[in-house]
Amino acid sequence: MSSIRRVRLSPDARREQLLKLGVQMLATRTLDELSVEDLAEEAGISRGLLFHYFRNKQEFHREVVLRAAQQLLKRTDPNPELAPMEQLNRTLENYLDYVTENYSSYSYLIRGSATANVELRQIIEDTRSEMARRVSDNLHLLGLPDDDLSRLAIRGWLAFTEQVAVQWVPDQKVPRERILQMFASSLPALILASHEPQEP
Amino acid sequence: MSSIRRVRLSPDARREQLLKLGVQMLATRTLDELSVEDLAEEAGISRGLLFHYFRNKQEFHREVVLRAAQQLLKRTDPNPELAPMEQLNRTLENYLDYVTENYSSYSYLIRGSATANVELRQIIEDTRSEMARRVSDNLHLLGLPDDDLSRLAIRGWLAFTEQVAVQWVPDQKVPRERILQMFASSLPALILASHEPQEP
Repeated sequence: MSSIRRVRLSPDARREQLLKLGVQMLATRTLDELSVEDLAEEAGISRGLLFHYFRNKQEFHREVVLRAAQQLLKRTDPNPELAPMEQLNRTLENYLDYVTENYSSYSYLIRGSATANVELRQIIEDTRSEMARRVSDNLHLLGLPDDDLSRLAIRGWLAFTEQVAVQWVPDQKVPRERILQMFASSLPALILASHEPQEP
Repeated sequence: MSSIRRVRLSPDARREQLLKLGVQMLATRTLDELSVEDLAEEAGISRGLLFHYFRNKQEFHREVVLRAAQQLLKRTDPNPELAPMEQLNRTLENYLDYVTENYSSYSYLIRGSATANVELRQIIEDTRSEMARRVSDNLHLLGLPDDDLSRLAIRGWLAFTEQVAVQWVPDQKVPRERILQMFASSLPALILASHEPQEP
């Protein structure tokens, strides 16, 4: 029984709680499986009342995905008080933990059928752009060049980490520390490799 | 006017020509834009006759995507007569040219709404697996370790190249040779970086 039921809340607070609950539920199911009925039941309110807070299922899904993306960005926000390489390590650790804890929805969102929805695809793209911007902003702290080639490499590196994370989580054949080390060392390795003098 | 119209063909040959035409048309439009009407018109046959060769639009789309995937695999098949690094370079060159020539359908297929379709997603996944298998089979020739970690790194590297290619083609801010050099040097760089001794 959810605590939502027992408390009278302002509309904003209720909407907020419904979103939180939606994001929580998304940890163990995909967006397709996140029905408005389940959420209403979990929240202890009627389906009708739910549509008082969200116009339709699409709006509810969009808001939940947006909230999940914000959580991911918050969780992976680099801590400027740490040394540059330590920032990167911590961010990567938090990222891998996030993917592990939210595997079904995360893998579904980045490579599943959610991408058929233009609005959701835009949220996913915006999230990637923000992550790329953060890495790019910190390149000089890592002693790496920040140019067009590096920006391409960063977008590629993010795709690399996404793919490896999504592939690794289900069976975890390789220790977590190995993956983290691969993530951290691959960024400078990729950028340096891409800037090597060209062969004639 | 297509030459298909003027020749009487066996059913198999006709089906083959329709598929070829579909793949050709896909070079400059996405799957969503590849209508059965356009194809029939281009082939100079009636819409009804088209459905003599393909049960429905879904089957036609699936067969066209499968054919396009086979073309990509054929075009990027390493030439065993070349030295290992030369094989890799040639493959990457052919890959980047393929993406450049088939940009709209390729980018749509790997990150667009096509992934909502389970059958198409499977074709795309199978194609990636086959590419990963080829790289993995040639690792020892490149003097690189072939283990679970390398296999993860290869899948990640393929996602890296996909992302960079799709990002690079529209504006080509960086010379093509730079991208090719980044692709080729990033594979050993990623695998070596991932196998570095771990920090305590």
